[in-house]
Amino acid sequence: MTVPHLTTALTGPLLELESRILIAQPHIEHWFRSQWHNHAAPFYGSVDLRNSGFKLAPVDMNLYPGGHNNLNPDFLPLAVQAAQSAVDRVCPKAKSILLIPENHTRNTFYLQNVAALVHIFEQAGLKVRLGTLNPEITEPTALTAANGAVVTVEPLLRRGNRVVLADGFSPCIVLLNNDLSAGLPDVLAGIEQNLMPPLHAGWAVRRKTNHFAAYDQVANDFAQLISIDPWLINPYFSAAGGLDFHTRQGEDALAEHVAKMLDKIRIKYREYGITHDPYVIVKADAGTYGMGVMSVKSPEEVVGLNRKARNKMSVVKEGLEVSEVIVQEGVHTFESINDAVAEPVVYMMDRYVVGGFYRVHTGRGVDENLNAPGMHFVPLSFETACLPDHKVGPDAPPNRFYAYGVVARLALLAASRELEATDPDAE
Amino acid sequence: MTVPHLTTALTGPLLELESRILIAQPHIEHWFRSQWHNHAAPFYGSVDLRNSGFKLAPVDMNLYPGGHNNLNPDFLPLAVQAAQSAVDRVCPKAKSILLIPENHTRNTFYLQNVAALVHIFEQAGLKVRLGTLNPEITEPTALTAANGAVVTVEPLLRRGNRVVLADGFSPCIVLLNNDLSAGLPDVLAGIEQNLMPPLHAGWAVRRKTNHFAAYDQVANDFAQLISIDPWLINPYFSAAGGLDFHTRQGEDALAEHVAKMLDKIRIKYREYGITHDPYVIVKADAGTYGMGVMSVKSPEEVVGLNRKARNKMSVVKEGLEVSEVIVQEGVHTFESINDAVAEPVVYMMDRYVVGGFYRVHTGRGVDENLNAPGMHFVPLSFETACLPDHKVGPDAPPNRFYAYGVVARLALLAASRELEATDPDAE
Repeated sequence: MTVPHLTTALTGPLLELESRILIAQPHIEHWFRSQWHNHAAPFYGSVDLRNSGFKLAPVDMNLYPGGHNNLNPDFLPLAVQAAQSAVDRVCPKAKSILLIPENHTRNTFYLQNVAALVHIFEQAGLKVRLGTLNPEITEPTALTAANGAVVTVEPLLRRGNRVVLADGFSPCIVLLNNDLSAGLPDVLAGIEQNLMPPLHAGWAVRRKTNHFAAYDQVANDFAQLISIDPWLINPYFSAAGGLDFHTRQGEDALAEHVAKMLDKIRIKYREYGITHDPYVIVKADAGTYGMGVMSVKSPEEVVGLNRKARNKMSVVKEGLEVSEVIVQEGVHTFESINDAVAEPVVYMMDRYVVGGFYRVHTGRGVDENLNAPGMHFVPLSFETACLPDHKVGPDAPPNRFYAYGVVARLALLAASRELEATDPDAE
Repeated sequence: MTVPHLTTALTGPLLELESRILIAQPHIEHWFRSQWHNHAAPFYGSVDLRNSGFKLAPVDMNLYPGGHNNLNPDFLPLAVQAAQSAVDRVCPKAKSILLIPENHTRNTFYLQNVAALVHIFEQAGLKVRLGTLNPEITEPTALTAANGAVVTVEPLLRRGNRVVLADGFSPCIVLLNNDLSAGLPDVLAGIEQNLMPPLHAGWAVRRKTNHFAAYDQVANDFAQLISIDPWLINPYFSAAGGLDFHTRQGEDALAEHVAKMLDKIRIKYREYGITHDPYVIVKADAGTYGMGVMSVKSPEEVVGLNRKARNKMSVVKEGLEVSEVIVQEGVHTFESINDAVAEPVVYMMDRYVVGGFYRVHTGRGVDENLNAPGMHFVPLSFETACLPDHKVGPDAPPNRFYAYGVVARLALLAASRELEATDPDAE
């Protein structure tokens, strides 16, 4: 595979960061081991990274990862081994797993991800069946993915303190691949089975700002460990609430957040001699799927939004109203391949990196296929596992991927701390 | 790669066994998970298998595996992940590992194995240094492996209750890749560090008959789980002691063992319609390296041995005298490739299969290179990880390798039970 190249001339800070990560590998792995003894790793997750050449940072941490079908099939055994480890940690006596996918049964690309997940767990020696929260599914229904794979979803039922399928299938592990944007479903409330991730990880409850607050701590600890400026791996963020995009309530306060953030970024850009334009991302604090996202370069841009922009910002998936946003430092994407922007996504299961791919955004002249719902990019799977190679330069592909794996695991660790901090049952 | 083919027409029982293993995969993996919760997996190990087309069985279980250099490099990430798991189980706070290789510093093929092990642990994020028991090494010494890799061995020293290198390097994990045939070294006695495998796994103490007694139990449990005749995965064995090959003491008793064993095999061969000649292997009960091994087809063959044969049987590695032998059912090797016999070896770390290869015995016309010490075979690494593929036949390569991985893990589990049963510190 052709590895994306950096299209910015300013790559010094990244090279320095990659060098430090490479040199400190034993310390880093030791540190992760001890962290995972104090903080349970999420069952699985994916992290969107941005590499600006002067900064390498996570911008999103997904606890219900889709896109497993985009991983390099050569590394399937890694995912299988990690799945065995994850299952062993949650419920060692598990023979089966009940997987709850998203409700959108007509997204045939998403169904490929479901089929890929089923395959991973089957390879790990588990029976896998799919239970759906979709009220339209009232009997076992075979669905065909874009690649022809067939998955059968069945209605979820509640029996006592357990969620089951119609024939009584009721394993000790219930794995969500549904981000619960629509709210916490009654059928899952208070079940005695191990629900992974827990209910409070769902987007009906979860807040990005909680995640990035946890990430602040993790990034600071890690930066101290390898003696770097934490800013190199951590985008600034702040939380703005009390918004109503329809009535324009809170606009000025939001503009203030944006202005302050831009000032902070400018100071750092000056420090590192970065001449690019700073920008910030305004995103719904709860939610996902690239809805309710705005990229702005000045505070004025969030004031007096036209109706279209306000509508776009006001709701996310499942019609959730947006009243709180995260204002996040924009991290430039300077990786590109054949003139198309490439953004790395790293996949993890248990505490292990199991692969990753680039989302290659092809922009105009896009292939017909890419306009299909759920597929606005070409996936380009990582060609090597995220293991370092000390015999080549710090920016050679294996070492770049290793750095990606390290930063992604920092976000995974932050998710673990975030879920601890937001656990409603915590004492 | 060309996968070896079976050169016997009688493959029905194997096909049946492979089918049952494939169908029972979820039960098998579930069973292993529960077994590993009751029995700690050895740190690592390799298992020699024999596939006769009607029987698939382990014939040797090595707790100090060499040959890691022969594994498919594509699966290195699997070994790295398993190594992280193994280290985490033994000493989560480990930053480093002290590896003790065999003493034979001039076996450049063995040194490739040491370099491969070092690489695996380095990739797992550990500092690795090599301490040697070899009294001839009195200062750090760089040794060059056959492939040009350089490893540096250093003298082992004792400080209080710890084994250390000269500069005080003293990690919490001390990993033996030396089978201690020469006896239990004082420098390791009673150290407070985690010594893996434990001292009583060394060939100065370990007995094959203890291993196969534990394997009897494991094979019976597993056979019940998937409803098969345990004989299909388990070679008969018996223990014969009180031998002195020099004075011919115990010859008749040994002949009696051989006769009884051949009778038992004949009964099974009749049951399964097998027309091949039964044979038994007589091996030193303690020891390794293919020394002190005899293949016999009648009891008369062990009586009145000539001087050469007696000398061959009487000592194994490091000059250990042989007074006890294991009489083991011979399992025909009917896998071959290009007319050369191929024997599978499966490698495991922690509870995971991390790869394997065929020892292809080339016999005459052998390449010059193969006559080098320690290298009497061509290694042919498995082309796939040992994961099943339910879409192809039970004897397709991925499924055959999965069956190999299952039987090898049975032997690993037997080693775990064996080490529990023979632990001198057990209560």
